[in-house]
Amino acid sequence: MKHNRPNKTLRLISITIGILFLSGLFFAAIAAAPMAKTQVPGYYRMMLGQFEVTALADGFHDMNMELLRNAPEARIRILLERNYLDYPKVKTPVMAYLINTSASLVLVDAGAGKAMGPSFGNVIPNMKASGYDPAQVDAVLLTHMHLDHVSGLLNSEGKPAFPNALIYVSKAESDYWLSPSVAEKAPAEMKKYFKLAQDAAAPYISMGRWQTFDKGNLPIEGIKAVPIPGHTPGHCGYEVKSGRDSLIIVGDMVHSIIVQAALPDVAVSFDKDQKQAIASRKAVFKSAARTGQLIAGMHIPFPGIGRLRADGENTYTWVPIDFAPMP
Amino acid sequence: MKHNRPNKTLRLISITIGILFLSGLFFAAIAAAPMAKTQVPGYYRMMLGQFEVTALADGFHDMNMELLRNAPEARIRILLERNYLDYPKVKTPVMAYLINTSASLVLVDAGAGKAMGPSFGNVIPNMKASGYDPAQVDAVLLTHMHLDHVSGLLNSEGKPAFPNALIYVSKAESDYWLSPSVAEKAPAEMKKYFKLAQDAAAPYISMGRWQTFDKGNLPIEGIKAVPIPGHTPGHCGYEVKSGRDSLIIVGDMVHSIIVQAALPDVAVSFDKDQKQAIASRKAVFKSAARTGQLIAGMHIPFPGIGRLRADGENTYTWVPIDFAPMP
Repeated sequence: MKHNRPNKTLRLISITIGILFLSGLFFAAIAAAPMAKTQVPGYYRMMLGQFEVTALADGFHDMNMELLRNAPEARIRILLERNYLDYPKVKTPVMAYLINTSASLVLVDAGAGKAMGPSFGNVIPNMKASGYDPAQVDAVLLTHMHLDHVSGLLNSEGKPAFPNALIYVSKAESDYWLSPSVAEKAPAEMKKYFKLAQDAAAPYISMGRWQTFDKGNLPIEGIKAVPIPGHTPGHCGYEVKSGRDSLIIVGDMVHSIIVQAALPDVAVSFDKDQKQAIASRKAVFKSAARTGQLIAGMHIPFPGIGRLRADGENTYTWVPIDFAPMP
Repeated sequence: MKHNRPNKTLRLISITIGILFLSGLFFAAIAAAPMAKTQVPGYYRMMLGQFEVTALADGFHDMNMELLRNAPEARIRILLERNYLDYPKVKTPVMAYLINTSASLVLVDAGAGKAMGPSFGNVIPNMKASGYDPAQVDAVLLTHMHLDHVSGLLNSEGKPAFPNALIYVSKAESDYWLSPSVAEKAPAEMKKYFKLAQDAAAPYISMGRWQTFDKGNLPIEGIKAVPIPGHTPGHCGYEVKSGRDSLIIVGDMVHSIIVQAALPDVAVSFDKDQKQAIASRKAVFKSAARTGQLIAGMHIPFPGIGRLRADGENTYTWVPIDFAPMP
């Protein structure tokens, strides 16, 4: 009977809808909440004497440990394996540090901004998540002028990200990267790094906010520049002291704390003067292990802050700080 | 001239106000932004195979290392000092772990709720900050029924914090803490712990949501219970496996990972059966160091997750995981 066809079709559709509906209910009943998949904001805060220090993650990349120099690959592999790290790629952060001395809000390094792709450029979002606005920053101290430290001086529109800050960098570092003649003589593959450094500096130079220094003197109470040459011509660390607490921010003195704490003679291919970089690292490590001074590094696992324990002559173990609530 | 007085007074007031106003401007100009003083939310997320694991901090307290047993104080002091930790007070967290298997959202332990004061009770705020609601939790697995693991089953109104969850605990543990005769025979100073365990369980028992198990079988794909006796009569760990990844959540098998990794024979005064607790720890450590299995503990520094490296027979080094972004 022809007139039954539509009824049968309708019944089939109803049954199908019913089954789908019940399956939906069933799966809703057995499935968990959808995965959140988000990570906690990349900042960590601690007090250093009367100063407040906030570690800010700019981003993470897989650093190639084949770039380490001056030790047999087997030895580097074993050190990483002992710490359950892969070879050759190790997830490595780019960090920056924000210090509130009460008198000044000081940022040490600015991250990569837009210069290294979407995995980077999180200094400002993490600073905001931590409760500060980039316009509140009074000073930015640069350890050196590689892109992952300097390009974050520009915001996503290419404008000054820290409009009220003075930017401090060592004269040797500034002179090197901003010199047209040095840039001109640089190998072709290096030219873009000069361009990025110049682009980051340009608007601050125009505004009269680009400040270079010769020695350790900075007009910021409690913070002084400490030359740590080798990685770049004017590479500087910054020593932060409040009360009996002391922290040295070592910039790119360390690229793999696991390998380089154990073997301070290991350099990285990025070090412009490897011999000088090794000598600098050995001196800083020796002093920090003796005094128990806190060390912060731009490529040390987040939050990048810890201390060194001497295990013998010129060999150390990294002791990261433990996460703690704010007092 | 009398009528000049009010004029002089007014002028004095005006000058004073002016000075105060200018001083205000001056200090505003030299003072930094006020300190934020907040800490990042206490959660950390990672993937374990196809499962999502979120470490949740419930709170922190200064644990007294004088409560450690079975090693000379001098040896414990040295181990802590080598890691730049004070003696006897060491900042120690209470942790819980949230696992999303896709089929179930599972919380391991519930923190202290309101039972340990305002430094604790942050499992739910941190869970919310991490993107989950307590009503989404399908199951809570208890390692044991001490207050800092069980009292968080109640929210701030004393009502079930996880209204849609089944609560799983080993039968030995449940029988011990919920037995009126055991509680009655307990020393006076212990009675409050029985009361807290009973209070936390009561509403879930009323709702028919209190589930005990005898052996390792749980109706949750990828998670099994692993008896780790000693700390309490039915103390259990939970082993979480997805793909080739494996994590064992060891509850209160560890109270100072620095001391107990180096010296697994060190017990804590809270261990009901110290000899058994030591034997359990030695077995779990030996296995985890051999396989490189991840370990999570409720009193291991946040996020409480890492691995062990064997340094010799029955002595290990704790290797915490590094912070990484979510893939």
